[in-house]
Amino acid sequence: MTKIITIGREFGSGGRELGRRLSEKMNIAYYDHEIIEEISKRTSLSADYVQRISESKPLISFPIHYRRSFSPTVCPAFQQSISVYTEQHKLIKELSEKSDCIIVGRCADYILRQKNPFRIFVYADMESKLKRCMLRKSPDEHLSEDEMRKKIIEIDRNRAKYYGFFSDGKWGAKESYDLIINTSGADIKKLSEGLYRYLSTVFE
Amino acid sequence: MTKIITIGREFGSGGRELGRRLSEKMNIAYYDHEIIEEISKRTSLSADYVQRISESKPLISFPIHYRRSFSPTVCPAFQQSISVYTEQHKLIKELSEKSDCIIVGRCADYILRQKNPFRIFVYADMESKLKRCMLRKSPDEHLSEDEMRKKIIEIDRNRAKYYGFFSDGKWGAKESYDLIINTSGADIKKLSEGLYRYLSTVFE
Repeated sequence: MTKIITIGREFGSGGRELGRRLSEKMNIAYYDHEIIEEISKRTSLSADYVQRISESKPLISFPIHYRRSFSPTVCPAFQQSISVYTEQHKLIKELSEKSDCIIVGRCADYILRQKNPFRIFVYADMESKLKRCMLRKSPDEHLSEDEMRKKIIEIDRNRAKYYGFFSDGKWGAKESYDLIINTSGADIKKLSEGLYRYLSTVFE
Repeated sequence: MTKIITIGREFGSGGRELGRRLSEKMNIAYYDHEIIEEISKRTSLSADYVQRISESKPLISFPIHYRRSFSPTVCPAFQQSISVYTEQHKLIKELSEKSDCIIVGRCADYILRQKNPFRIFVYADMESKLKRCMLRKSPDEHLSEDEMRKKIIEIDRNRAKYYGFFSDGKWGAKESYDLIINTSGADIKKLSEGLYRYLSTVFE
């Protein structure tokens, strides 16, 4: 039985660290930012740009009237967004064929639904997410607590919209997952060990 | 550190079995129907009646005008409901003082919030809940699949109202729990072993 684990996560919840630690314990592949880098190579778009549009719902373009004809126009940003998603979709399927793996974010749970992945969602309360983000921000990121709070809310809002647009589920809603973990005030190292033990039983 | 685990569960999700198996593995006390029986003794109400009102939001009684005075009247059913909740509240606190334990349902997570319990919620899709309920119904329960579906929906609706009335959280919403487990199509025995291993790490 191939082990495919997908991890959806709120920004600052420690979901990425949890996934990385879990992959080390399970000794299986881990894909997160690697996906962005590969898409960037394939599409010749910068990694930063791919990152930005790969976590936002595309801007819908509406058909407009032109003279008497009804012409569906599609703006370039929308097209790029769709092509990044299409490339991501293909890549995630390829990765899941290669070996057991953990894939973080990017609707992987939905894209791989035929393979019956184990779907995890990681979340935390705002206080914990804020604390984590403030501790881990890069030295050139000069955000106040208030600005960071707004950033967290905005990123999560975009993730929810992206998931809602490309899947038929609701991001973070329990119906879309097998296990939902609250990391508020928790030690991620400890949780990753617990999760490893939990999954060892599930995959037995 | 005292180990207190609370389990909220959708009707038919297997949350009760999960809790019972977990208590056996952890070798700690398990309280579910035992609470109803004790309340029944303390209040001299029948266990069936206590069970029914202990999972429904009380019917609110509104103040009514009587001649010129404004008289708050309280209906007996409301009073009974409140006294069962009060008794339950006291009992759950007593039980948590006695020893490590697992308490199923009854807002225990909220009642014991000062003690920082590990709060689990167990759920499943309707198909799994229905299958489980049809398999496990008592021989004198002659419900069709459609009737059982309605029963599941009604019991869960009442549990949600009860939780909403007596706590400040939302029943089944991830903010109210530490771990949320989807049992759809899963083997509860296996999950209980996985959960046991997970908790062994968390409580280490």
